[in-house]
Order: sequence, then structure tokens, then C-alpha cells
Amino acid sequence: MVDGAVEALRTWGAGSTGSRLVTGSTTLHATLEEQLAAFCGAEAALVFSSGYTANLGVVTALSGRGALVVSDARSHASLVDACRLSRARVVVTPRADVAAVDAALAARTEERALVVTDGVDSIDGGIAPLRELHAVCRARGAVVVVDEAHALGVCGPGGRGVLVEAGLAGADDVVSTVTLSKSLGGQGGAVLGPRAVIEHLVDTARTFIFDTGLAPASVGGALAALRVLREEPDRPAAVLRVADELAEMSRAALTSSQVGRGREGEVPLAGQLPLTGSAVVPVVLGSPVVAFDAAARCLERGVRVGCFRPPSVPDGTSRLRLTARADLTTTELDRVRTVLHEVLDDVLAEVPA
Amino acid sequence: MVDGAVEALRTWGAGSTGSRLVTGSTTLHATLEEQLAAFCGAEAALVFSSGYTANLGVVTALSGRGALVVSDARSHASLVDACRLSRARVVVTPRADVAAVDAALAARTEERALVVTDGVDSIDGGIAPLRELHAVCRARGAVVVVDEAHALGVCGPGGRGVLVEAGLAGADDVVSTVTLSKSLGGQGGAVLGPRAVIEHLVDTARTFIFDTGLAPASVGGALAALRVLREEPDRPAAVLRVADELAEMSRAALTSSQVGRGREGEVPLAGQLPLTGSAVVPVVLGSPVVAFDAAARCLERGVRVGCFRPPSVPDGTSRLRLTARADLTTTELDRVRTVLHEVLDDVLAEVPA
Repeated sequence: MVDGAVEALRTWGAGSTGSRLVTGSTTLHATLEEQLAAFCGAEAALVFSSGYTANLGVVTALSGRGALVVSDARSHASLVDACRLSRARVVVTPRADVAAVDAALAARTEERALVVTDGVDSIDGGIAPLRELHAVCRARGAVVVVDEAHALGVCGPGGRGVLVEAGLAGADDVVSTVTLSKSLGGQGGAVLGPRAVIEHLVDTARTFIFDTGLAPASVGGALAALRVLREEPDRPAAVLRVADELAEMSRAALTSSQVGRGREGEVPLAGQLPLTGSAVVPVVLGSPVVAFDAAARCLERGVRVGCFRPPSVPDGTSRLRLTARADLTTTELDRVRTVLHEVLDDVLAEVPA
Repeated sequence: MVDGAVEALRTWGAGSTGSRLVTGSTTLHATLEEQLAAFCGAEAALVFSSGYTANLGVVTALSGRGALVVSDARSHASLVDACRLSRARVVVTPRADVAAVDAALAARTEERALVVTDGVDSIDGGIAPLRELHAVCRARGAVVVVDEAHALGVCGPGGRGVLVEAGLAGADDVVSTVTLSKSLGGQGGAVLGPRAVIEHLVDTARTFIFDTGLAPASVGGALAALRVLREEPDRPAAVLRVADELAEMSRAALTSSQVGRGREGEVPLAGQLPLTGSAVVPVVLGSPVVAFDAAARCLERGVRVGCFRPPSVPDGTSRLRLTARADLTTTELDRVRTVLHEVLDDVLAEVPA
């Protein structure tokens, strides 16, 4: 993948030089768009400089004044900002609550409506009820936008995402966004969907028109990563197996550290034990201080984990976020198990009962 | 510069791997921030994934509900979107109209106020009246945010920007944004200003917190470009000399093609003849069809020029935008002169009187 990025750099230079509409498009960008669309079963794709700007671009271009946007309460910050920027009326529905989405769509006076959701929840790894959501959107004449940031390369057949998994890829009322900076390991984002939608974005998406095109190195890197995904189709399943193991060891470590101090009656963290089905494995610890401390202690012991505190997560749900990789070895996983037990034991011992 | 990017790629990989707050910060990012701040005379800097997201981040983080944002009518789309996203009350003042800014600040009921402007106008290359603007902001207790996208590497001593030129760099009520994708030839953006502002952005700027950090190759490329700027301090002045030549030849070509058909009485394009003082040299042609046609004909003849049409520019002011480079040779400039004369003669001959 680094080689792909280096080759692109040597061929095309360090920058794309300008807006995609002026001088910032190369044949490399077009190739990546074709290959992303083909991989995910969409008609067309458009590359942006980040997943963030892809979300801003698609939501604002497909809504605007006089439209309704229904957004899941757990939508990523970039989707939240996209809603704010859209000037549409925005209704926020409870997490994965399809009936609430249906009610919001049914009660609308606006003709155009957009429903936006993460395909995989970035906080706990849960997967959105896409088939039900799409059925409601279709019945109510709304377009659904699914952010596949945590799905591409991990979920669905060969890592093609949750829309392919749900049999919705290529539908004429479904649009998705992906990032090139998670499973694909680089930088950038893209919108995938019907060709007419993509052409509309070229003409109207402000974060496409007024931003510098993605750097050639990042485009070349993403193409190389996509090739790895196609040639090694078992990698995504390996990620999910590792995620299952991480979830299991987190659950065991949490339970043992709570039971160990006679708090099995309270189990303040029960009900917040990790889900699986994606690469995201949350370990909810409650207080931001405890979570930060735990992450620091893990790092000291050689295990780098994410630490999510407000405003990334709601108050009282600060957490570690473990991220599964396909290539974690048994030795590495054993090390994670040991470190998690030690660290959770230590930090939870210091929390007042 | 490509070598700098390749070295960063080989050392740090194709992506930064995550948000700067989680796993996306490298020592390379910190070095670039130190060097950008030092070069531009600011206390501190923060690198974003694009100039667009830098503008969104700084304006939203420094304003919000209960604040006033005064924005120049010609502010770049990313500043316009930043204002929309800010939830502040927004007042748009006529271009470079310091009295109107003063009036808006004086009439406000909000305690906090932010004034945003491009340092160099992206459409006609004009330079904002920064000293006057800053005096008004200081008197009225407002912070000024100056977008140096078209200034860094071109304007001011050694390309240090229009704030250094105006003697305002390092002021405690001045913040600037830069892009790494114009004169620095790569990708990314940054906010520069007092350390307290930068620390506040780390904690609150959503496009910093929730976006993937800039790819190492882009960071390494920007560091290499900055080194070139430091080691070859005459390059920015060479850009301005080339811009003057381009402006002069555009003016001559426009005038000759109008006079040639006995239209010197109307001169529909007078008053819109190119300014200089930056790398941006506009050639206003009026209709989007004519401008597009002219750009295409220039390209056929080997001269790549930008073509700006609505919504990038107001109706009736579609234009070519020539961009000066330090390394254009006399032979290349002669070629541009010939091509501009031929093309403007052709396309304006087809415009009905």
C-alpha cells in the first residue's frame, strides 16, 4: 500500500494542485472512483478529501431548505454537522428506531426527505437495521444515506460493507459514504450511489467544488489497499474473529474485576458490555478520568487502545475502544488479555463504591 | 518536496490511522506545526486535513450561539459554510468595507465577536485592508480571522503572508488559516494564532477532533516545501513579478480584442481588468459559455488556465483565472501572451455586440 502511494507521488506529485473541478482531477482519481463503485456494487462514486467532507457534501447537496433530514441520534459528528449545515429541517430519532423514522417521514410536509445513519455505530459497533430502514424510506419516498466508515473492509461479503450485506447496494434510493482512512489505511473519503446523484454532487456539493482534490499519494494508497481487499478476501472475516476474541476478553476482564471486589450485585457496567459484528469493541468504564487512566496504563504496557470521552460519547459512558485488526497474532492477543485484566483490575479498584 | 513526502510515507505509513486526539498525531505533525508558526510569526499552529476543515474548525470553535460573526461578502465558500455551521448571528458586510464592519461590531448585543475575511481575494487577487480592519476589531473587542490561503508563499516578506506584511503577526487578537495545497503544493490546512486559541481548538474544534489526521506524506511534503521557502526566499517575489506580467498581457489582449472590433466605447470589461499583488490574475469574460470556451481553447494550445463560473463567482463575471508560478520562463510567458491574444480574439469575436 505504501508502494502504491509512493508510485502515485512519483507520477503525480505531492498535491492534486486544486479543486477537482479546476486542476485537481487525475486519471488516478477516476480509477479509484470506478473501483470503489464496482467493489461496493454502486453505480458510481466521487472521491472527497475526507470522510468528513464527503458527509458534509452529500447531505447538504441532497437536502437544503425545504427538505427534511432525519438523523439517527448516534450519527457521527460529521453527519451532525452536515445536518446543521444543510439548512433543512432536522429531526433526530432515537438510535436505530425505525418506527420513529417512519413517523417523522409520515408527518412531514416537505416533499424531499433524507434519512442519515451510520451503518456501523462508531461508539459500540452495533449495526443499523438497514433493511427495515430502507423499506420505510422507500414507502415514504425518502433517500437513505448510510455512512460505511466502520463497515468498508470489515463487514459484508469480502468487506464490501453493510449495504451489500443487506442486499441494498445499487438501489436507486440508497447512497453511501466511505472513508479511505480506516480499513484502507490512508486518507480521504467518497460518496457512492446512483450515477445521477454523483453527477448532482459534482455540480452542487460545496465540499467537492471548493476543496482541493485528494492528494495523489492518498489516492494511490487507497487503490493499493482496495487491491489487497480484492486479492485477500478472507481478511475482513479475520477482523471479525479478532473482534469476537477482544470482546470476549474484555467481558471476562470487566466481570472478573467487578466480581473480585464483591460488586456483582451492582454491576454498573452490565448492559454496556461489548457487542460484536464489527471491528469496534467498546469497554465502557464510566468516568473520563478512569477511561483516560486505563488507556494510559494499557499504552505503558505496550497495548495502544482508543479512549473516548465526552463530547465523543455521552456523559458517564467514557470508554476504551479496542479496534480489531486482521493481522493480530495469538501472542499479541494473549498480551492484550493479560494487560486488560491487570489494567481494569487496577483502575476499577480505585473507583469509589 | 516529493522526496520529503516519500520519506514520510516510508517512515510513518500511508495514513495517520485516526483522529489526531486518538492515534493520528505523529512527531511529524508537531514539527510541521512548530515550523508553520515560526515561519509566519504566530505563537502556535494546528494542522487540519484541509484548509476547508481548518476554516470550519476555527470559526465554529471561536463563535457559536450567542456570538456575532461578521463575514466579508467575498469570503471563500469554506468561510461561508463555517459561518452557517457556527450557529452564531452572521452579518455579511460589503467587500473590504471596514466602516461596515465597525458598524456591525458597534451595534452588536453579543459579547463575543469574530470578523472573518480572506487575506487575498480568491477571485480577483485583491488584498484585504488588514491594518484598518484590525484597528476596528481591537477597538470593538473582536477577534479577526484571516484566511491566508492565497497569501502564504506569495505575499509578505519571503512569502510569510499578508499578516506579517501588515505587522499583525503574533497579535493576541489575530488568528489566521493557511492551506498546504496551494503554494506548498500538497494537501491539508492549518490554523495559526495565540497558544491559548490553539489549545482551545484541540479541545473543541469538531473538524479537528472528529476527522482523521492529515496523512504523513502530506505532512512531510509540506515540511519540505516550507524548507524550500526558507532556503529560497526570493521565490515569492518572483511569483509577483510573473503575476504582473500575466496581468499586463491579459489587459493588452482584452483591450486589443475589444478595440479591434470598434467597441472601445462600450468596454464591457473595463473596471474588471486584473489587479496584481498576488498570484491570482483574473480575466473577466462575462458569460460562463465564453469563459469555458476560452479555457478549453487555451488548454488546446498548451496553456492550462482556471475557469470560474457561478456559483464560484457572481453571475455575469465568469472568468479565466491565471495563476502565477515563480518558475515560469520567458519562453513560457511569451507563449501565454500569444495564446491569450489568439483565444480572446476568437471567443470575443463570437459574442454578439
